[in-house]
Amino acid sequence: MDNFIFANPTKIVFGKDMELEVGKLIKEYGGTNVLIHYGGGSAVKSGLIDRVKESLDLNFIKHIELGGVKPNPRASLVYEGIKLCKENKIDFILAVGGGSTIDSAKAIGMGVCYDGDFWDIYSGHYEPVKTLKVATVLTIAAAGSESSGSSVITNEEFGLKRGFTSDLIRPVFSILNPQLTTTLPLYQTACGATDIIAHVFERYFTNTKEVETSDRLCEAVILAMINNMPKVMKDPTNYEYRANLMWAGTIAHNDLIGMGRSQDWNSHGLEHELSALYDVAHGAGLAVVMPHWMKYTIDHDPIRFQQMATRIFGVKKTSDPKADGLKGIKKFQEFLVSIGMPLTFKEIGAKKKDIPYMVKTLGVSGKVRDGFMKLNEQDCTNIYTLCLKK
Amino acid sequence: MDNFIFANPTKIVFGKDMELEVGKLIKEYGGTNVLIHYGGGSAVKSGLIDRVKESLDLNFIKHIELGGVKPNPRASLVYEGIKLCKENKIDFILAVGGGSTIDSAKAIGMGVCYDGDFWDIYSGHYEPVKTLKVATVLTIAAAGSESSGSSVITNEEFGLKRGFTSDLIRPVFSILNPQLTTTLPLYQTACGATDIIAHVFERYFTNTKEVETSDRLCEAVILAMINNMPKVMKDPTNYEYRANLMWAGTIAHNDLIGMGRSQDWNSHGLEHELSALYDVAHGAGLAVVMPHWMKYTIDHDPIRFQQMATRIFGVKKTSDPKADGLKGIKKFQEFLVSIGMPLTFKEIGAKKKDIPYMVKTLGVSGKVRDGFMKLNEQDCTNIYTLCLKK
Repeated sequence: MDNFIFANPTKIVFGKDMELEVGKLIKEYGGTNVLIHYGGGSAVKSGLIDRVKESLDLNFIKHIELGGVKPNPRASLVYEGIKLCKENKIDFILAVGGGSTIDSAKAIGMGVCYDGDFWDIYSGHYEPVKTLKVATVLTIAAAGSESSGSSVITNEEFGLKRGFTSDLIRPVFSILNPQLTTTLPLYQTACGATDIIAHVFERYFTNTKEVETSDRLCEAVILAMINNMPKVMKDPTNYEYRANLMWAGTIAHNDLIGMGRSQDWNSHGLEHELSALYDVAHGAGLAVVMPHWMKYTIDHDPIRFQQMATRIFGVKKTSDPKADGLKGIKKFQEFLVSIGMPLTFKEIGAKKKDIPYMVKTLGVSGKVRDGFMKLNEQDCTNIYTLCLKK
Repeated sequence: MDNFIFANPTKIVFGKDMELEVGKLIKEYGGTNVLIHYGGGSAVKSGLIDRVKESLDLNFIKHIELGGVKPNPRASLVYEGIKLCKENKIDFILAVGGGSTIDSAKAIGMGVCYDGDFWDIYSGHYEPVKTLKVATVLTIAAAGSESSGSSVITNEEFGLKRGFTSDLIRPVFSILNPQLTTTLPLYQTACGATDIIAHVFERYFTNTKEVETSDRLCEAVILAMINNMPKVMKDPTNYEYRANLMWAGTIAHNDLIGMGRSQDWNSHGLEHELSALYDVAHGAGLAVVMPHWMKYTIDHDPIRFQQMATRIFGVKKTSDPKADGLKGIKKFQEFLVSIGMPLTFKEIGAKKKDIPYMVKTLGVSGKVRDGFMKLNEQDCTNIYTLCLKK
């Protein structure tokens, strides 16, 4: 096991009607003047934003709003949010929505406390030391941003999607009410589920030896996901199945299960180019990329793929680790299809001719991407090319 | 899933030589005048206490010492520690040792900030609102006290062992260096492992339905324990196996894996009477009590026991949940024997004639103990009686 430091102080407030506590919680954390940040119409139409505002009013907390966050959240809205916060002397940001809204809120929080251009942070030119406090009311099980230190923003001007990670930007609290997710369309639910599973696999594919404790935890979260998703598909309004997904989504990305081991994250990197270029849902892009990344890297450590296949996908262990591993990847793809996910470029509108451009913007020219298996420019090209077929 | 609130801010600093960081860390957390609290001679003889003091000196942090914590830590030493802290204006307590030392440090920390008798807290007559900050350098994988909000103290005057739980007393940071555990005798290692497994089972046996995510996490930790313990028995100085145990021990009791579900804790309650009366190691007492508690309660929910048996102990699923469950309990007992744990009263020097006294001090007369299956006085008597045989 590798040395590590782990601390995740985000308070998780989980359960029915818990969003009604939001005003009280913000008060506890010292917020007095809040930006409520959200996405499209559903948070407004469902009455959630009104319930949140009522809770703030009851606790005499001032608030303004900024809606309009889109999937693959845009830098332009972050700039708008920073300006709004500075003008209104905002001291606390409440994200009401999913990963995109939370990521956007985190970017605004850092941007308000930095005199330069917030994109400096995402392009690796500035390490922030301060942020406004961010809290969340989560409306979809997916990104894990509700307790992670990560944020991914798309700069539409440059056609780039870039992430930033620091303990500094973990939300101070997150309210997880599975009731809010029971009306989500199944396609969005499945995209979220795929993202959750991918967060675990990015940690599972490691070069660190003898990490059974965290291996088992990773397998536990994926088992819970692949057993619960068919139940959600059949009975989407069932609270309990949604609750299991929602809690798994947080655990998948609160960092605990990946401690003390090298991780991968190349499927996420390869996917970011897809969603930046085609504005495809992140989970759908991952469903295309990750199994092909697996097929491409299996020779790097067939025994790890065999472990995945036998412990997670019920493949019977044989003396041929690679054959077992490939069976596991096939079963993973079958699972993805069963929840309505795409497996190929064609299904998401991605084009073979764009592969050189995506590889270029990945920035691997003359370098390698670190991870489970180091990837050079040609490797990335090969993985994208595999995505042309199932 | 039940509603819940989860927050565990304890910073885990895990890995080789990490105890050398202790002075720097205490400084970060504002400690200036530290009580170093520890147990018997091994922490001194091994040079660990000297290394810790050197790290404090390097960071210009004042310190005094209080050693002598025994397993099943005593109220008398807590009183001494409180007096010492008050006299020396101590503002931070560093526990160097295992669960007993950490539990004692937590009791001292609360006692210093309370004008009354600290035992009021453990006897349920006072809810503390303040404590000195406590941090730990852990030397055994066992109690999980390094990131839990629990502390158990034995009041030798009254012959009582009582616990207290509150988020208030989670350590601010804990240093986990598996190297420090490689010289532990196998019996102590096995007692610790049994305690870890018991912490998970106390959460696993629940009446909450549809909790697959946390079920799977519980199973993951126990699988890691029962697969790693034989490796540790064969190769006790292997860093990696010890690291897996140590990390599993923290996760077993940092509260995450038990969220949103009813829990049991009656095996711990029944065991506390054994260790209070016979001063037996807590883990050894649990090895005696827990499998018999399982046999006694299996009819309450045979399907849950079947799940344990098939997912954790490799029992083949049949149409008879109880039979499968009993096979699982047998395999659990076989595992305990394989790591040198006792299964009966006789092996730990406990006596049939003391059962009425233990049941009396459990305080169930005219009441029931809550948990997976509610236990009245007769149930407790029956479980203790089962412990007379394997």
